[in-house]
Amino acid sequence: MKKGWIALSAMAAFYVTASASDALIEQAKKAGLKPIPENKSELYRVIDNPKNPITSAKVRLGKKLYFDPRLSKSGLISCNTCHNLATGGVDGVDAATGHKWTANPHHLNSPTVYNAVFAQKQFWDGRSPDLEDQAQGPIQAAPEMAATKEHVEKVIRSIPEYVKAFKHAYDDPKFVPTFKDVADVIAVFERTLVTPSRYDKFLNGCDKALSQEEKEGLKIFIDKGCASCHNGIALGGTMQPFPVAGTYKYANVGDFKGDKNGMVKTPTLRNILETRPYFHNGAVWNIEEAIEIMAETQLGTKLSKDEVKKIKAFFGALTGKKPHVSYPILPASNEKTPHPSLD
Amino acid sequence: MKKGWIALSAMAAFYVTASASDALIEQAKKAGLKPIPENKSELYRVIDNPKNPITSAKVRLGKKLYFDPRLSKSGLISCNTCHNLATGGVDGVDAATGHKWTANPHHLNSPTVYNAVFAQKQFWDGRSPDLEDQAQGPIQAAPEMAATKEHVEKVIRSIPEYVKAFKHAYDDPKFVPTFKDVADVIAVFERTLVTPSRYDKFLNGCDKALSQEEKEGLKIFIDKGCASCHNGIALGGTMQPFPVAGTYKYANVGDFKGDKNGMVKTPTLRNILETRPYFHNGAVWNIEEAIEIMAETQLGTKLSKDEVKKIKAFFGALTGKKPHVSYPILPASNEKTPHPSLD
Repeated sequence: MKKGWIALSAMAAFYVTASASDALIEQAKKAGLKPIPENKSELYRVIDNPKNPITSAKVRLGKKLYFDPRLSKSGLISCNTCHNLATGGVDGVDAATGHKWTANPHHLNSPTVYNAVFAQKQFWDGRSPDLEDQAQGPIQAAPEMAATKEHVEKVIRSIPEYVKAFKHAYDDPKFVPTFKDVADVIAVFERTLVTPSRYDKFLNGCDKALSQEEKEGLKIFIDKGCASCHNGIALGGTMQPFPVAGTYKYANVGDFKGDKNGMVKTPTLRNILETRPYFHNGAVWNIEEAIEIMAETQLGTKLSKDEVKKIKAFFGALTGKKPHVSYPILPASNEKTPHPSLD
Repeated sequence: MKKGWIALSAMAAFYVTASASDALIEQAKKAGLKPIPENKSELYRVIDNPKNPITSAKVRLGKKLYFDPRLSKSGLISCNTCHNLATGGVDGVDAATGHKWTANPHHLNSPTVYNAVFAQKQFWDGRSPDLEDQAQGPIQAAPEMAATKEHVEKVIRSIPEYVKAFKHAYDDPKFVPTFKDVADVIAVFERTLVTPSRYDKFLNGCDKALSQEEKEGLKIFIDKGCASCHNGIALGGTMQPFPVAGTYKYANVGDFKGDKNGMVKTPTLRNILETRPYFHNGAVWNIEEAIEIMAETQLGTKLSKDEVKKIKAFFGALTGKKPHVSYPILPASNEKTPHPSLD
């Protein structure tokens, strides 16, 4: 009984929220900031796609395909090459670089795959409604994986273990995997790549999850208006007005102009300290500089050094726990598997 | 008691060796074929390097560095890019391709990292005595990771978690990691990448570990003289005479001529069905064709289709169990970390 009492009172102490924190949590919620759901069924409701339901068989298969470089024309590039789960879900270079060492023609930076499920749109110009659709893009894009749908289908259908895994995942002994199915199971795996952090604990009422400086940073972040774009679970992921060239000094790199209305997808701030360089064109490497520029160009505000420092401290609390991923052993190619081509 | 008796008699049945198998095992041992030691202390004696002893702290750190693309100039290529643990420890392309999409100038194929510890020499021309020395090569080679020693040291020293892990691994609070230390811990990780297979069980006396066809394949493999080069634990890994151009029709790809005596390192046959394309230049994609060519050019023997088929079946028994590897979450770069360069 005593043990139980101690555990209960420890929990009570842990969850006690100072009134200042209560007010800050309230303010954060009003500003549209939301935690990653703690409750698993609520989480799955948020990350699932009813048209492509998450199952463990699909997650397992999708993970393999996410890491399989044979989906690319060269046999050298996988989803994980540019969205590396080891390094914050990104590649750490300014412009995404793929087949034949070709940089993205618009000099666009690879967004992180972690928490991408929480974004309302995919790609910087928001042209894709969900991860299932998005996953089809880079596999086929000439400067990325440069594969045709036919190549991907030939590779997958040549490997009996993959065919079997698709039959199992779709519970259909006659299942013949298509390019779309490949993208679908990769998307299912990606839907599981969420990274709860101390920030989520705080929003869920755990006062001690954030330090005083981090709380101050969060308050400045909201007070200054950062959360007007960086909101929701993702702290980003919605289409927002794009800084015009001239005002935004880095807009001139590449010829990217956002979507047809000049809107650009706001990147998530989760794990932001792990995903440099910053901005759609990877033009800024220093997070403090990025914070300053965004305040100036998007909000017309000049932040003090102290404010920037505190916002950066708050960003540290957005570094989340990554799901454990066993590195897959992929089924071997064989005589029927198409050869890769480096050309 | 009954349960124990059943277990014992099951074990006895499992290990009972038909006299034909006994003779084959004897023949294999006389031909210089050796299993991966089952006994852990014996295994560690074989895979360890007294000048760079294996410790779990070094293995953990070495694994991270093996997967860290920031060791390369571009920030995109890790050891695992060409020696991919997901795909048999190789890249699956004919010529190793690295920085700026440059193929190996001699059109050399990436050898597998699995069981590389059992090779007497490293690199196709055997110029490297061990994995510690070998690991320094590709990181610096212009068509591979293209980094300078200074770049690697700056990257590692800029990341506090890495510096701390080195201090811990070398039990020295003042330890400052050098390029050589980086290669050393990567080599330690690589030393653990051994893949015991059914073939090893068979050589250790388990008759049922191989099918009848696989046993026949092993016997043909020895009778025809394949084991005169492909022997030892690695079934390869020693320097052997190199087929001359003209006789060996694929020798003309690239200008590789072996070491100064015209010798080339015999590749391991472990996991060979997972490591196509074959030969030093990756010129042959079909294992049956590779077996035929080797018999003709190296042994002056023409094998029947049936013999080739059985040798291939035996090769299937060399596919080993890969060590479980958790995909690492690497410590983040920061303002002090050098930027990657795609040029």
